[in-house]
Amino acid sequence: MQYHLNGYRTGDPAISPAVDRPAARDAVDVLIVGCGPAGLTLAAQLSCFADITTRIVDRKAGPLEVGQADGIACRSMEMFEAFGFAEKVAKEAYWVNEVAFWRPDAGTGQIARADRILDTEEGLSEFPHVILNQARVHDFYLEHMRNGPARLSPDYNLALVSLTRTTDADHPVEAVFDRLDAPGTQETVRARFVIGCDGARSTVRAQMGHRLKGEAARQLWGVMDILAVTDFPDIRLKCAIQSADQGSLLIIPREGGYMVRMYIELDSLRGDERPADRNLTADALVAKARAILSPHRLEVREVAWWSAYEIGQRVCDGFDDVPDGARGARVPRIFIAGDACHTHSPKAGQGMNVSMADAFNLGWKLAAVLRGQAHPALLDSYSNERRAKAQELIDFDRDMARLFSEKPKSAAEAARFQAYFRKHGRYTAGVETRYAPSALTADDTHQGLAPGLPIGMRFHSAPVIRLADARPMELAHVAKADGRWRLFTFAGRGDDGARGSATARLCEALSNLIEPAAPDALLDLRAVFQQPHRDLGIERMPPLLLPRKGRYGLIDYEKIFAADPRDGRNIYTLRQIDRENGAMVLVRPDQHVAALLPFGDMPALRAFLDRSPLILPRRA
Amino acid sequence: MQYHLNGYRTGDPAISPAVDRPAARDAVDVLIVGCGPAGLTLAAQLSCFADITTRIVDRKAGPLEVGQADGIACRSMEMFEAFGFAEKVAKEAYWVNEVAFWRPDAGTGQIARADRILDTEEGLSEFPHVILNQARVHDFYLEHMRNGPARLSPDYNLALVSLTRTTDADHPVEAVFDRLDAPGTQETVRARFVIGCDGARSTVRAQMGHRLKGEAARQLWGVMDILAVTDFPDIRLKCAIQSADQGSLLIIPREGGYMVRMYIELDSLRGDERPADRNLTADALVAKARAILSPHRLEVREVAWWSAYEIGQRVCDGFDDVPDGARGARVPRIFIAGDACHTHSPKAGQGMNVSMADAFNLGWKLAAVLRGQAHPALLDSYSNERRAKAQELIDFDRDMARLFSEKPKSAAEAARFQAYFRKHGRYTAGVETRYAPSALTADDTHQGLAPGLPIGMRFHSAPVIRLADARPMELAHVAKADGRWRLFTFAGRGDDGARGSATARLCEALSNLIEPAAPDALLDLRAVFQQPHRDLGIERMPPLLLPRKGRYGLIDYEKIFAADPRDGRNIYTLRQIDRENGAMVLVRPDQHVAALLPFGDMPALRAFLDRSPLILPRRA
Ligand SMILES: Cc1cc2nc3c(=O)[nH]c(=O)nc-3n(C[C@H](O)[C@H](O)[C@H](O)COP(=O)(O)OP(=O)(O)OC[C@H]3O[C@@H](n4cnc5c(N)ncnc54)[C@H](O)[C@@H]3O)c2cc1C
Ligand SMILES: Cc1cc2nc3c(=O)[nH]c(=O)nc-3n(C[C@H](O)[C@H](O)[C@H](O)COP(=O)(O)OP(=O)(O)OC[C@H]3O[C@@H](n4cnc5c(N)ncnc54)[C@H](O)[C@@H]3O)c2cc1C
Repeated sequence: MQYHLNGYRTGDPAISPAVDRPAARDAVDVLIVGCGPAGLTLAAQLSCFADITTRIVDRKAGPLEVGQADGIACRSMEMFEAFGFAEKVAKEAYWVNEVAFWRPDAGTGQIARADRILDTEEGLSEFPHVILNQARVHDFYLEHMRNGPARLSPDYNLALVSLTRTTDADHPVEAVFDRLDAPGTQETVRARFVIGCDGARSTVRAQMGHRLKGEAARQLWGVMDILAVTDFPDIRLKCAIQSADQGSLLIIPREGGYMVRMYIELDSLRGDERPADRNLTADALVAKARAILSPHRLEVREVAWWSAYEIGQRVCDGFDDVPDGARGARVPRIFIAGDACHTHSPKAGQGMNVSMADAFNLGWKLAAVLRGQAHPALLDSYSNERRAKAQELIDFDRDMARLFSEKPKSAAEAARFQAYFRKHGRYTAGVETRYAPSALTADDTHQGLAPGLPIGMRFHSAPVIRLADARPMELAHVAKADGRWRLFTFAGRGDDGARGSATARLCEALSNLIEPAAPDALLDLRAVFQQPHRDLGIERMPPLLLPRKGRYGLIDYEKIFAADPRDGRNIYTLRQIDRENGAMVLVRPDQHVAALLPFGDMPALRAFLDRSPLILPRRA
Repeated sequence: MQYHLNGYRTGDPAISPAVDRPAARDAVDVLIVGCGPAGLTLAAQLSCFADITTRIVDRKAGPLEVGQADGIACRSMEMFEAFGFAEKVAKEAYWVNEVAFWRPDAGTGQIARADRILDTEEGLSEFPHVILNQARVHDFYLEHMRNGPARLSPDYNLALVSLTRTTDADHPVEAVFDRLDAPGTQETVRARFVIGCDGARSTVRAQMGHRLKGEAARQLWGVMDILAVTDFPDIRLKCAIQSADQGSLLIIPREGGYMVRMYIELDSLRGDERPADRNLTADALVAKARAILSPHRLEVREVAWWSAYEIGQRVCDGFDDVPDGARGARVPRIFIAGDACHTHSPKAGQGMNVSMADAFNLGWKLAAVLRGQAHPALLDSYSNERRAKAQELIDFDRDMARLFSEKPKSAAEAARFQAYFRKHGRYTAGVETRYAPSALTADDTHQGLAPGLPIGMRFHSAPVIRLADARPMELAHVAKADGRWRLFTFAGRGDDGARGSATARLCEALSNLIEPAAPDALLDLRAVFQQPHRDLGIERMPPLLLPRKGRYGLIDYEKIFAADPRDGRNIYTLRQIDRENGAMVLVRPDQHVAALLPFGDMPALRAFLDRSPLILPRRA
């Protein structure tokens, strides 16, 4: 954390100085409808920028307190780190370390533990896969928003009823809300952009005339969070249990050491039947869980929350208000994100994670356009990138749901499910998302410079030593959710940054390419060297790596790193970076690798930037 | 973190349910005078107990905002972990990774880097040595107190003027305060115990008739927290700089990446001269620092805080109100802790740390006596244990201060300072404190069972795998600041906890020794096994290791651990625990090892408990 740049400030450094401006209410830059994980991620991202006015509203009367999703993938933890609260989640959450598989024993027919595997493969992320009530994730976002310069917090009791495009050049979208706390009254908000993060029954989606497409599966599932006493030995492990003839159960141990979530397979829905028609009760769920776990005992002492739902893999035909034919001809003004775009079963724990990832993809783009740092064309990439991801998710979920519900007729079939589960650990961890080549993502011409940092995928962190204070740390943790692009330079052999070195030449060329007036406000440069850190000298480094900042012109000492020479910790080895020639890695504000480029190849960097919608203040 | 035991609760689990009782004001169990690190540690400890009434007051008008101490030793981080906020400190703080030594170059006479060493030897603690403004440490304690069941917060503007023993049997100490916010008015508080955490000029100490004894050294030092621009390359490293003829300087980089603290040697005081007589200014300190750092540039842009003081190594002749002759004949009612007991230079960064350790030693003892879990004789041990520590600190500081101020006439002399510094890394890390054998601390008869867990020293953590959820974690992190004693059992070879095993027999014997009515409320049992965790079965473990708790009788699954088999992480190897026979380790509520005992040796455990002032509800 860097702070005190513009003078010593008392108190919590996570609380930014407040902007001196009345909160915008009836005309804003961005209006977010819905305070779920998608809406809050977006609001948290925008709340970092003092110059953007945002409102976020929800029809609910207040924040979520119980239930809904709880799985937090490694990739989401990496994003939380960028927002500054990963360690809070890690502290409260249950950590998923292993998964147990239970199946009918060939002899007795009773369930028995068939296998037990690592949940997340070693080295996939520096963060664990954890489980925490969605409500607490909301709390951390809300705190982040409150601490931002605009002291953003949601307005509740506002239900969106209509959305219209107007001719107002500044705020071309008008939203009308019913005020649920004052029945009969309405409120109108005009906005430059409206984002529907309003869940599976999205009004914003309906107002755009879009709809979810896909199969309406007929499988009914129940979920409950319980406090119970049991002699089932793996109650504190994530378990997939397939019984001989009572159906399937997924156990997700929860935070706090006592609570457990169970996902329970129920009978298929028939005809037009809806989940509500079944008159399901918590007791019925408990009875079913007991039957599946038998002969183990299950005494439920409290049902903290429960729900029943039908699984359907569906995806929306459009993620913004630009028809495919008009793409490029007009600027999208209305977007949807999260469950408004895609619905799927909760079993792979993707609901909250993919919704947040949607918003993380969109947030920086909106900010860049609003702040004049990118052409509006940038906004088209949201739909391109996230629709592909949604389709992939739906396909994955369909396979997973089918395998999970199938009665394992043979050990081979059961083993097949387990193999699928294992294979897709990377996918469910959220680290497999790969954006296709585009104006924002280079093709694989230079992928060979660092095969361990795949272009289009999230920048996979690795340990380094910060030069100035010899601190061992994770390199990707410098990538805060601040809307900045990052250029990581990995020096080639022998380069020590001193005058005449390739790094020194690169810094000079970069100063000539980009206007250095507001040093590193737009492009955050970070240099990594191969030498042991004690062999490098900060006094020999180029000035661009020691930028002067803030009203005092203080030196930022956190730009330069050395590889950590300890066993298994060297970033050059871990990410297969070309040790001979080095490499430049350009990383997007959402932490995805935009491009790998030959070290010091300024024409290539310039070409990439010229093709992109970014507006960087360049030198003539 | 364990929570939701008595039912699902929404919101932040760190906030305990509030007790339904008006805050006590004029008659309390414990009155703490002074809101420095000592007073706040004590208040934080007592705030955990809903059945103890506490008040904490300070003459100041509000919380500290700037200045004073900043060094946080590894041992203090371990204690913060017990209070639940180590990760917050780690996040904000500067991490001291290395120390650089600068001395005059033999040729030029200008300062040059002579060496650079690791600050904290590998494996000394699972926590780093960090630097953070004392005010932030106060903030974290205040938050902890506010979140406790009694929602404790300090009363400011109250200056203690007198303290008298009365004949009131319940509240035998009466304290009178001047109300600084209402001049001319006073407030009286009666208490069972009063603790003077009121700093170097302690009124409580004076009221007991005690005084500080020792040399009044005449060395004057200045300290300043600055935002500056410099070309001194090691400005983000802790540096000890001895110049040829301008004196010495200690650089302590500070949190946030920009601020730096400098300790500067000034001229000796003459005769009756006091620091204030010098009319020192911040400018004078800056000028002096410049001279020492020359030829490096130092442009100071802001002085966030500065101070000047005389170094004196002094220790109080009594830590409570019982004269040495009357020890044992009466119960101490008034205590002092922290700077009220000992003063010394800030160079080894001990001020805040030792003060907190004083209070951590006293807090659980007061709680145990107030809650009827120990005989009042327990309170005598505070003075015994902490006076010895204070004397050791004073001696250490005297040597350190002398070495630091000596002009290094030769390279050999300079190297001597550096060697001393290195050797005493363990001491300054706070992990060397060792309480002498007493009713609370066994002698070394059984030390051979685990040479790596020295009796009387803090229980040195090591990695383990929690059985129920396969979570890798630090064993000592189960030791929260909850006033409980802990019995760690390290199983011998082949013991898997199943029926007939040594662990099973031990658990049975323990159930016979201690009343199991309130399972583990007093003695927190934790079992560690040698086998890989997947070779152990929770279903085979004795019931005492799966205690039923709370209003629902839920099972606590966090009692059983396996050694972590990975390289360099096996607790049996790291702490040299007897693999053949195992060992029992009894740990005090302040995390110091009370006793090592042969595995399953109940007579030895009973003998230790019988000799101690503890009152455990025993079976007949
Ligand atoms: C009842 C329920 C149970 C769930 N259970 C699980 C589970 O067990 N496991 C799992 O993985 N996932 C579960 N999910 C899904 C998971 O919570 C979602 O995937 C995730 O919350 C999606 O985030 P989102 O931000 O896109 O939408 P949501 O979290 O659904 O948030 C949408 C928000 O928009 C608001 N809103 C809707 N319409 C309007 C309107 N017209 N005007 C104003 N505000 C509006 C809603 O009140 C809501 O707060 C559940 C979801 C629900 C609703
Ligand atoms: C001005 C100053 C500068 C320091 N600078 C450094 C430094 O640079 N480096 C370093 O390592 N250490 C420094 N220290 C020392 C370090 O802060 C102490 O070692 C540490 O704070 C000791 O903690 P404590 O709780 O024992 O006492 P203190 O922190 O001194 O707290 C005592 C509290 O008691 C209150 N109090 C005193 N008398 C009364 C009364 N009669 N009635 C009510 N309240 C009263 C005071 O207002 C104060 O809040 C400094 C201390 C001071 C006071």
